[in-house]
Amino acid sequence: MTRILVVYASDYGNTKKMAEVIAAGVETVPGAEPVLRAAETVSAEDLLTSDGIIFGSPVHMGSMDWRIKKLIDSLCGGMWMKNSLVGKVGAVFATGSGHGHAGSGAELTLLSMLNNFAELGMVIVPLPKSTPGYAQSGLQWGAWSQSADENLKPIGLSDAGLVAARHHGANVARVAEALKGKTLFAG
Amino acid sequence: MTRILVVYASDYGNTKKMAEVIAAGVETVPGAEPVLRAAETVSAEDLLTSDGIIFGSPVHMGSMDWRIKKLIDSLCGGMWMKNSLVGKVGAVFATGSGHGHAGSGAELTLLSMLNNFAELGMVIVPLPKSTPGYAQSGLQWGAWSQSADENLKPIGLSDAGLVAARHHGANVARVAEALKGKTLFAG
Amino acid sequence: MTRILVVYASDYGNTKKMAEVIAAGVETVPGAEPVLRAAETVSAEDLLTSDGIIFGSPVHMGSMDWRIKKLIDSLCGGMWMKNSLVGKVGAVFATGSGHGHAGSGAELTLLSMLNNFAELGMVIVPLPKSTPGYAQSGLQWGAWSQSADENLKPIGLSDAGLVAARHHGANVARVAEALKGKTLFAG
Amino acid sequence: MTRILVVYASDYGNTKKMAEVIAAGVETVPGAEPVLRAAETVSAEDLLTSDGIIFGSPVHMGSMDWRIKKLIDSLCGGMWMKNSLVGKVGAVFATGSGHGHAGSGAELTLLSMLNNFAELGMVIVPLPKSTPGYAQSGLQWGAWSQSADENLKPIGLSDAGLVAARHHGANVARVAEALKGKTLFAG
Repeated sequence: MTRILVVYASDYGNTKKMAEVIAAGVETVPGAEPVLRAAETVSAEDLLTSDGIIFGSPVHMGSMDWRIKKLIDSLCGGMWMKNSLVGKVGAVFATGSGHGHAGSGAELTLLSMLNNFAELGMVIVPLPKSTPGYAQSGLQWGAWSQSADENLKPIGLSDAGLVAARHHGANVARVAEALKGKTLFAG
Repeated sequence: MTRILVVYASDYGNTKKMAEVIAAGVETVPGAEPVLRAAETVSAEDLLTSDGIIFGSPVHMGSMDWRIKKLIDSLCGGMWMKNSLVGKVGAVFATGSGHGHAGSGAELTLLSMLNNFAELGMVIVPLPKSTPGYAQSGLQWGAWSQSADENLKPIGLSDAGLVAARHHGANVARVAEALKGKTLFAG
Repeated sequence: MTRILVVYASDYGNTKKMAEVIAAGVETVPGAEPVLRAAETVSAEDLLTSDGIIFGSPVHMGSMDWRIKKLIDSLCGGMWMKNSLVGKVGAVFATGSGHGHAGSGAELTLLSMLNNFAELGMVIVPLPKSTPGYAQSGLQWGAWSQSADENLKPIGLSDAGLVAARHHGANVARVAEALKGKTLFAG
Repeated sequence: MTRILVVYASDYGNTKKMAEVIAAGVETVPGAEPVLRAAETVSAEDLLTSDGIIFGSPVHMGSMDWRIKKLIDSLCGGMWMKNSLVGKVGAVFATGSGHGHAGSGAELTLLSMLNNFAELGMVIVPLPKSTPGYAQSGLQWGAWSQSADENLKPIGLSDAGLVAARHHGANVARVAEALKGKTLFAG
């Protein structure tokens, strides 16, 4: 079994819903199994037993929700010390408003989570432009869906964003499957 | 006179047009004067005699156009060595497609230009959310306007993006005016 | 009085000490007054009544300590909605290890905090290369000091890093003083 | 054969030397073959026929050398349009000074190159902390070696940096080998 941990912080349920769709995408890959967790409930065991890890957050002032950051500081820092997650696969997703129509901080939000995976020595899976749904709702660093309009009015997630998210989950599962059990990194 | 240098690289004229609008914004501030230059034509004199400097670029694969980068490598590197631009004011702008509706790399593009200004010890002027036009077309790091739709079809610049750009120019001129001639930095 | 709020999160006292030195730097500027706060104790009042705001954090997996992020999510998000801090001055600092001798994530850590200030429409003060102490201990986005060696052994802060930090505080106070009370931003 | 393209821009030969060492690391992996190119000489064929691509640059004002950027704008932009490189493997490296002892812009330099690979839908290989040489010379986003001291005096590359670089090349070759020929991405 290729285990993909999908972690989210969610304020109004949008990021949680996107996490569920990504988990459903993981399930479409034969031999892959998603594990879905709110950030506050993630255990060291969850991280250590996964082949791939996906973190998702609403965009909050251009970076990840503090609950994701608390998880990173609490659990990932120690795993960095011990090189515990080297060679696993990492990916990210986010939800945010359409205020400004330029991502409103989505790019650095995704990157602030990816930086944790890079530090941990994990192989990073971006969102290819060829992903269905991407043209309407996506960013190179990961899946993204608008959850509020340009005036910050909640509008729910877009279908296109959810289609891309579903594929993102499947992509990560396939890459994790391909790399699983291989000794890729020196050291 | 408070001199604001507005530098652009442009492929199809959109970023040039945005630069012209920013320059027009500078002109609305009493005592401020814009100097407009294509990246290839900027001289050391242009940079050294300005109180504020604004760089703009189309979004190209998540970073600035190579012509802006060549200017930075050719002229700004040496000025960094000599601390020639410390205390001046810097700001940025970009144009890009609506592909993905999440900025499609605009954030790191703006940041790749701002990093040059930070290295040079320049005070950075962002684009406040309160700027007219921002809700329809803007990003925290600087002015941004869509120039192509989600399918990459050229659509010209949006009115909102140009309104925000005009204010961006005026904002930079006012900050440069306020800081001009003051000894702000130790060293 | 020009009020500069200096906020820190600290694990072993290094970032707190650096905050104290920055606050002492603020005090060297006539008419400037520092307010020193641990992240958990910052009030809305603290932010709203300051002319300049400086955030500092240890480098944790390439981004800010979760306590700084919690403060941002809890207080700054709402102030973004109301444009409450537009035109104030922002700056950052960090402490981290010498592991890798390449900053070990300091750059994105500083940037993750600056992004909050950019979103809030605040003018950003970098650390100029000409700052005393910078050559031994500094980064363009803000003050930085090593607090552990390349093997992660604690070594305390460097003298050079503290010298640069002190100047950073004074620089921010001078820029805040110069911009205070002026209407700089349209909107 | 797993083909790994190693591309560099170099001013004084340091980044070229690092590229050669990375290429030598690729050669240590059975079935892997490096192709070494200066940025100005890279052809579309070079990119299209590779299984993995590694870009390296000196740190220039916090971003990549303009010659790397010109290559990206000239060749990679069109390949992004056609999804030509989706699923290939990407990685980066840099050389820079020890000025400030905090990477002096190395992190965003590496990231400005990685952003291109993310846009292209390429799987990204970071530099794990467990890599030999990393503690003395490395960064999470890729291999890094100091080429000048804190006073900007040239000192050549460090042995540790070259050891890490060699392993980086081998790591990338192994990941590319593992992913080669697999259909990983939807679309």
